[in-house]
Amino acid sequence: MADYIEQFESAAEWFRGLQERICAGLETLDGDGRFEEDAWSRSDGGGGFTRVMEGGRVFERAGVNVSNVHGDLEAAFGDQLPGHGNDFKAAGLSLVLHPRSPMIPTVHANVRMICKGDSYWFGGGMDLTPYYPYEDDAVHFHQVLKDACDRHNPGWYARFKQWCDEYFYLPHRGEARGIGGLFFDYLGVSADELGAAVRGRSSHALEQAVSKDEAWAFTQTIGDAFLDAYLPIANRRKDEEYGESERRFQLLRRGRYVEFNLLFDRGTQFGLKTDGRVESILVSMPPLVSWTYSPTWDAGTREAELASFLQPRDWLGQQSR
Amino acid sequence: MADYIEQFESAAEWFRGLQERICAGLETLDGDGRFEEDAWSRSDGGGGFTRVMEGGRVFERAGVNVSNVHGDLEAAFGDQLPGHGNDFKAAGLSLVLHPRSPMIPTVHANVRMICKGDSYWFGGGMDLTPYYPYEDDAVHFHQVLKDACDRHNPGWYARFKQWCDEYFYLPHRGEARGIGGLFFDYLGVSADELGAAVRGRSSHALEQAVSKDEAWAFTQTIGDAFLDAYLPIANRRKDEEYGESERRFQLLRRGRYVEFNLLFDRGTQFGLKTDGRVESILVSMPPLVSWTYSPTWDAGTREAELASFLQPRDWLGQQSR
Repeated sequence: MADYIEQFESAAEWFRGLQERICAGLETLDGDGRFEEDAWSRSDGGGGFTRVMEGGRVFERAGVNVSNVHGDLEAAFGDQLPGHGNDFKAAGLSLVLHPRSPMIPTVHANVRMICKGDSYWFGGGMDLTPYYPYEDDAVHFHQVLKDACDRHNPGWYARFKQWCDEYFYLPHRGEARGIGGLFFDYLGVSADELGAAVRGRSSHALEQAVSKDEAWAFTQTIGDAFLDAYLPIANRRKDEEYGESERRFQLLRRGRYVEFNLLFDRGTQFGLKTDGRVESILVSMPPLVSWTYSPTWDAGTREAELASFLQPRDWLGQQSR
Repeated sequence: MADYIEQFESAAEWFRGLQERICAGLETLDGDGRFEEDAWSRSDGGGGFTRVMEGGRVFERAGVNVSNVHGDLEAAFGDQLPGHGNDFKAAGLSLVLHPRSPMIPTVHANVRMICKGDSYWFGGGMDLTPYYPYEDDAVHFHQVLKDACDRHNPGWYARFKQWCDEYFYLPHRGEARGIGGLFFDYLGVSADELGAAVRGRSSHALEQAVSKDEAWAFTQTIGDAFLDAYLPIANRRKDEEYGESERRFQLLRRGRYVEFNLLFDRGTQFGLKTDGRVESILVSMPPLVSWTYSPTWDAGTREAELASFLQPRDWLGQQSR
């Protein structure tokens, strides 16, 4: 593992700096709420810093985590990942923001570096979950992500957008979680390293040679793109008016977020089932959520319109802009 | 499968009658709310009746389902169950009640008959999830269940109570879901039928001979015991006073209920991952739920006391009463 220790430590440090920049940007947007930080350590190795804002003016609950952990994977899990050997190190930043206003979308972002045995790779992405359909928000979000991807590889936006659409999907509801974004994983491993186990589960894992340096540079570009992708949307929606009925709709839709995270999200499930720090993992849960039986909305309302708005689509048109 | 069709149809009819009696008892208790019924059918075979009360005086949300479904199990799942052949029929009643008052416990109950290939068996149970610790409620609930078990077999209460304590446990929180009750499964199959796959996963599955008739009689006794076990508790707590802080605590604790059901409950996961009727399965979700970061309560408060109250214990004392 020795030859990537230096790269790993420098990535972990970069994630910590990104956390600082993102939290500063979100505090400025909020204008009132402040992040509080908890440092924690993991009995099996490593630890992290969890930053949480609750009860802000814009953010009802926002969590921005960095972690840097290491240990040994169980063979049943490790065998499904690239790299010979089940010792691992993982560092990354992960955030979920739940705004108070139903007019501002919930957002999730993650960037990470994983080392396992004799291999290492990068992953991450971000996705937007609006409650009310604003097409210009979706276009803005995807345009920032496409521009970021295009600086590295003209094929990556389409590829990682599709991976995102497939990943953030609730099969029991037949619904997308939101309007998508990017999802990438195993970036920087060669076709050899990737292995049949990974290829079998994930048709999107790149089989082309991407250097570790290029993979890391791309991961940084995506991390740095987060504020550009999200802040303008939150800013132009934060003074939008809404009432009790929009709030009720938001609480019901937040239920879908809970369903996805607890039923399907690999990070959440893996963290909870392997002694991760529960309060840091579940800082992704919404602050207030509601379920009612078979709610319906009249055709033509914005609430009814959301279903078709969430159908995966080419937000930037046939022609790249 | 022919020789148990008659038994199956009569069990399904009995569950429907039990649904009627339970809903009538709950409506009387509530005094205001009424159950509405949805009949549904399943594209792969069978269907059910979902009864829901929302916005009652006592019950904020209550769901009482019966279903009668059939089809074929995927081999990977079917191979873990008794019986040769993967054709199945399943009938049962399942309920979850979420009272409005934090002083009244949430409760879950289920009774079922499962036929698979050349075998069939019975399962079920119930468990109580209080928000505020009332010892006499826990003792009453367990006493009714012990009396019901004792009418059939003097060893079953202890055995099925322990199974319940082990099943309704949140490993990531290190917490029991509530004060337990009963959980039983595979009742009525012989040691031969049970098979190594089931024994390996479930040390509590009875390996002694219990006749199908006795297993069915016991299942009916447990179904019939539900109102006796729950109504007196709800009745004596429903006029108990509470304020905003007790309500907040209830909403946070309901988060644990969501976590258990979506992360660990076998019935919920199986239903959602096999095209079950989503709104009937998730009628178990609380109507309003909250998560906050690392909430704590001062020592000596009833909220802090709940943790030790939920430790599995012998509610009825060393001597059976």
